[in-house]
Amino acid sequence: MIVTVTLNTALDITYRVQGLRPHASHRITEVTERPGGKGLNVARVLAALGHEVAVTGFAGGTTGDVVRAGLTGVHRVSDALVPVAGSTRRTIAVVDERTGDTTQLNEPGPAVSPTEWDAFQEAYEDLLTRADAVALCGSLPPGVPVGAYAGLVRAARTAGVPVLLDTSGEPLRRGLAARPDLIKPNADELAELTGSHEPLRATQAARRRGARSVVASLGPEGLLAVTPEGRWRAAPPAQVRGNPTGAGDSAVAGLLSGLVEHLPWPQRLARAVALSAATVLAPVAGEFDRAAYEELLDRGVEVTAEAGAA
Amino acid sequence: MIVTVTLNTALDITYRVQGLRPHASHRITEVTERPGGKGLNVARVLAALGHEVAVTGFAGGTTGDVVRAGLTGVHRVSDALVPVAGSTRRTIAVVDERTGDTTQLNEPGPAVSPTEWDAFQEAYEDLLTRADAVALCGSLPPGVPVGAYAGLVRAARTAGVPVLLDTSGEPLRRGLAARPDLIKPNADELAELTGSHEPLRATQAARRRGARSVVASLGPEGLLAVTPEGRWRAAPPAQVRGNPTGAGDSAVAGLLSGLVEHLPWPQRLARAVALSAATVLAPVAGEFDRAAYEELLDRGVEVTAEAGAA
Repeated sequence: MIVTVTLNTALDITYRVQGLRPHASHRITEVTERPGGKGLNVARVLAALGHEVAVTGFAGGTTGDVVRAGLTGVHRVSDALVPVAGSTRRTIAVVDERTGDTTQLNEPGPAVSPTEWDAFQEAYEDLLTRADAVALCGSLPPGVPVGAYAGLVRAARTAGVPVLLDTSGEPLRRGLAARPDLIKPNADELAELTGSHEPLRATQAARRRGARSVVASLGPEGLLAVTPEGRWRAAPPAQVRGNPTGAGDSAVAGLLSGLVEHLPWPQRLARAVALSAATVLAPVAGEFDRAAYEELLDRGVEVTAEAGAA
Repeated sequence: MIVTVTLNTALDITYRVQGLRPHASHRITEVTERPGGKGLNVARVLAALGHEVAVTGFAGGTTGDVVRAGLTGVHRVSDALVPVAGSTRRTIAVVDERTGDTTQLNEPGPAVSPTEWDAFQEAYEDLLTRADAVALCGSLPPGVPVGAYAGLVRAARTAGVPVLLDTSGEPLRRGLAARPDLIKPNADELAELTGSHEPLRATQAARRRGARSVVASLGPEGLLAVTPEGRWRAAPPAQVRGNPTGAGDSAVAGLLSGLVEHLPWPQRLARAVALSAATVLAPVAGEFDRAAYEELLDRGVEVTAEAGAA
């Protein structure tokens, strides 16, 4: 079983409007909603790849109920969310039908009390006893200490469970010090962490800060991996057009499934790139196109070893 | 008992952000929500004035549950909402903290089936047997026929219950033909209905289309009433600064309470203007400031008779 942690789960709501103008009133033409937060997205992709997944983190209020209800139907995903008195946040993506551009409004999330945070850590340690790997994903809700991920990384390492950390800013910086097995920053997160905008240099610098392996996601250019086993670049065959929402979460699912299946790095990276591209290509944001994934995996992803020492 | 009808109830959500920019991502600094839709706002003000109120219309889904839960604590307001399979809409007001401007995003509301519409009409006719007055408020959700208000006005007249209609566009045009006792259009609604931008002319024209009395709300200039008993203008003592959200609904509550209390027109109008101004002055959108209301009522509202035949 793989565990994904989403401390700040969300109900992701998408609104389509005909032109967004500040200070005007808009009639929404289409409303869609689904359970969200990075770890929940990762879990859905892992389940689609055939893995059993337990999702944990916090859920509360009526939006929390909607998130949990949305998980009950998902095959191979089990709900191990911990109740919180506050309300799970909503995120609103306003898609302008004229331009295709998206404006994002993100609620902060529920205030988590020290008692609730303790209850979560207990549930998490219990899950670790049965986990093959764990992914720690996304932002922290108010009340959770900024060093939270460092503690969760340490607990996973103590339990002998490989741990992937996918967050940004101070929670990433603090989490790194606890030496996670893998981080997957994007170019902006890498630059914020290391001060360098040169991908290889920044990826190496991130690794020196404590991660065993770093896989940098460079958008359309694919992935750059710096690991104890070697360095690789993996890229899709051509530029992929579509909606990049969830592409990073699909890459995390690819890396994590490859890890628990003990695939060699080049295969893990090929899978992550193919899943990521197949997510961009899917008509629904955050889903992946299985036919595109299989075709990309068969003959579309180029993985090349990088020269130099890791 | 007064009945307020809100066919398209809403969960009104207010987000505060630091500067709204299309195509950017925004962290929401404050989230507030409350049951909404014009008739629910009218009901809260009527209850605060001491009237027993039954609210009806449709409620469904988890947002409908939140709306109903938000009504349970309100003294003198009873929930007579009719269940619907679809979800009650959300409205999102995004307040830019830098400018104070509001951007509005309105979901369309649940699709109402013919069976649900029949069930509502049955519940409505039952409520009419116990009603002193009824207010029909706001937009129609998808599936409700555009001539809906005409039927509801007719049913009220058949039952001998005074009926106020507060809507706009085609539903107002159609509803007028059934001869409601009172309509309360604003300047834009009047102009859309009659083609005239001159308030007195437009108010008289609206009355000829079927309303027994027309009270036009002219924003900061107050109200203009054309009735079988005479014509009046009522205005606040000075320009009132604040948030106009809900000011029109408070005016409706003032007019309706004055009607069931058999107040003479000048007193009804003074109450409506005072409530409306006290709503603009209140710190929370849609609430009214009771001290300001009482002071305005005591000595602040000027009501003058207009010359000429009604």
